[in-house]
Amino acid sequence: MLKNKQIVLLRHPMGAPKPSDFELVEKDVPEVGQGEILLKTRYFSLDPYMRARMNESRIKSYVEGFKLGQPLDGHAICEVVKSNHPEFKEGDIVMSDTGWQSYVVIKPLLITGISRTHEGVTILPKDIKPSLYLGVLGMPGLTAWHGVNKMADLKPGETVVVSSALGPVGSMVGQLAKSKGMRVVGIAGGPEKCRFVVDTLGFDACVDRKSKTFEKDLGVACPKGIDFYFENVGGRVLNAVVPLMNLAGRIAVCGQISSYNAASTINEKNFSLGQIIPRIKAFFQLLLGINRLPIFMISVLRQRLRVQGVVIVDHFDEYPDFIQEVVPMVRSGQIKYKETIVKGIENAPEAFSNMITGKSAGKVVVEI
Amino acid sequence: MLKNKQIVLLRHPMGAPKPSDFELVEKDVPEVGQGEILLKTRYFSLDPYMRARMNESRIKSYVEGFKLGQPLDGHAICEVVKSNHPEFKEGDIVMSDTGWQSYVVIKPLLITGISRTHEGVTILPKDIKPSLYLGVLGMPGLTAWHGVNKMADLKPGETVVVSSALGPVGSMVGQLAKSKGMRVVGIAGGPEKCRFVVDTLGFDACVDRKSKTFEKDLGVACPKGIDFYFENVGGRVLNAVVPLMNLAGRIAVCGQISSYNAASTINEKNFSLGQIIPRIKAFFQLLLGINRLPIFMISVLRQRLRVQGVVIVDHFDEYPDFIQEVVPMVRSGQIKYKETIVKGIENAPEAFSNMITGKSAGKVVVEI
Repeated sequence: MLKNKQIVLLRHPMGAPKPSDFELVEKDVPEVGQGEILLKTRYFSLDPYMRARMNESRIKSYVEGFKLGQPLDGHAICEVVKSNHPEFKEGDIVMSDTGWQSYVVIKPLLITGISRTHEGVTILPKDIKPSLYLGVLGMPGLTAWHGVNKMADLKPGETVVVSSALGPVGSMVGQLAKSKGMRVVGIAGGPEKCRFVVDTLGFDACVDRKSKTFEKDLGVACPKGIDFYFENVGGRVLNAVVPLMNLAGRIAVCGQISSYNAASTINEKNFSLGQIIPRIKAFFQLLLGINRLPIFMISVLRQRLRVQGVVIVDHFDEYPDFIQEVVPMVRSGQIKYKETIVKGIENAPEAFSNMITGKSAGKVVVEI
Repeated sequence: MLKNKQIVLLRHPMGAPKPSDFELVEKDVPEVGQGEILLKTRYFSLDPYMRARMNESRIKSYVEGFKLGQPLDGHAICEVVKSNHPEFKEGDIVMSDTGWQSYVVIKPLLITGISRTHEGVTILPKDIKPSLYLGVLGMPGLTAWHGVNKMADLKPGETVVVSSALGPVGSMVGQLAKSKGMRVVGIAGGPEKCRFVVDTLGFDACVDRKSKTFEKDLGVACPKGIDFYFENVGGRVLNAVVPLMNLAGRIAVCGQISSYNAASTINEKNFSLGQIIPRIKAFFQLLLGINRLPIFMISVLRQRLRVQGVVIVDHFDEYPDFIQEVVPMVRSGQIKYKETIVKGIENAPEAFSNMITGKSAGKVVVEI
């Protein structure tokens, strides 16, 4: 009988997730009933927002937390290997929300775009590398497109800064802004990533956030200040950006990666004696020290900044407009990207940990 | 010879301004030349934004700092007592930017509205109490109107919260939002102010920010959460508001009164030994302790908040639209207000200090 390998969440990770927080389980694949299809996963997506979903959810969030003992969901590219549904045929390559597992039987709902539900399935064109639908042509790409087109209010000659510049969101923010004639400055972790951002993605500059001179380097890279900042990380990077914001500057808040691990450590209620030190460290990292909120608010006031949160699930209806604009740019090779493809479902937990701590580069997908 | 009494800034105040930070000086009033007019001040305005202008300016701000030894400027209501200008006649009541002094000779530029320059002068109608042009019909009123009409994006049945609810900006924000059918909750300092806000201004509720149960009380007053927050103060009030913000909520950042005094204490470079303790206290008050910025940014992200700074000098061109809407509401008595009129220019420094520390109520003007 066909077996489905799944990764399930064993416990809420404290800090950076460890492989021991997850478990690989095998389940029988059920029969394919009437109106159902059997999907074989080719790739599934690892995304930073999943880190927040792994936390014990004390406060309501925009997506439900992952449940302990349940397989992790998320976007995936699958092949239809058996179909009892008139709109799908064997061999179709589809984008679904079936997550970290190798086989799944679902009663699909044929859609075009990104699904808001576990049933929604989109059939993909066969002339484009399918994994791109998890990156530059998927949710991350749409997020970037929405930021640049609907939030940035760009005017000619403005300066755009984006953190996590090599990631699927950041790389698209920069390339789309560049195609509109902006000065584009990336922020990435380490000189190698920075080189890729400038040499391959075509940014005007990229600043290494791990450098001791990061704050100064960012100022040098933005001689006319910053007009639009696409925020993915928070922490030290945000602190360096705010003083450089120009009058009437805009900040799109899309992620706060630097806070996710620390927040989890503080939130976790059941912890052992050995975890006291990491908890104290997380408190210091995230909460204690200088209260930067009053200074931030004075900057918002003085510089008339507009700071706006974005969660892309609110804007999935923009996917057709996005695809119409960006697919030709991908086909022509104008849009570049960095992909890290990790082989084997059993390696997903470690790959996720590497992604969230900045050890991997670009869009991380797991290939089965 | 006619003498002009002026209040000049002697030193940059540390913390709450003291009368000894100012000096009353007398100067001869010059001859009224061709094209000039002599103005006798009837009222001049005390506004919280002036506190920021009294600080040593290390970082660029939206208005120039006051200069030591120079008279303080700001909005005033004056009477034309001599005119060598064809467009002004003796007895005209005007709104000008001539500040904390009793007589002034200027070469005026006749305008209608709020002046961006020291020369711009507006002749006022005689059937409206002139001091209102420093409050609900002046810059504070326009600030409130802009916030409610251009920033709030109010939808039927939403909840609006405004801090400094008895002040000229806050009271107008609340009354304008109320006239549009919103649930309006004020925040003010002390039960007496809160009673006025509900009983006279007609807010649905008002919460005492000095109460030990303030955070809880605010939650009770906003059972459906907060959709639009008009922010004047920062600090504890902001910290209580943020967790109550609804999905897609808006925050207009108009002031950060709670930070002005502390910031000045930290900024001051030349300080005596006796000022070390207040400096350390200010550091703790403003900067040390819990870093609330990461939590704030996570709220902005999760709740898709839009946080926007506003400085009303950017929007003086909206004054005619504002006046057209609000003058009839003032004439009909629909708009209520609280005014504190302080008599005598020599009492202005103490009155300013009382205003900035919340000891006075409503719009504070000095009558000469």
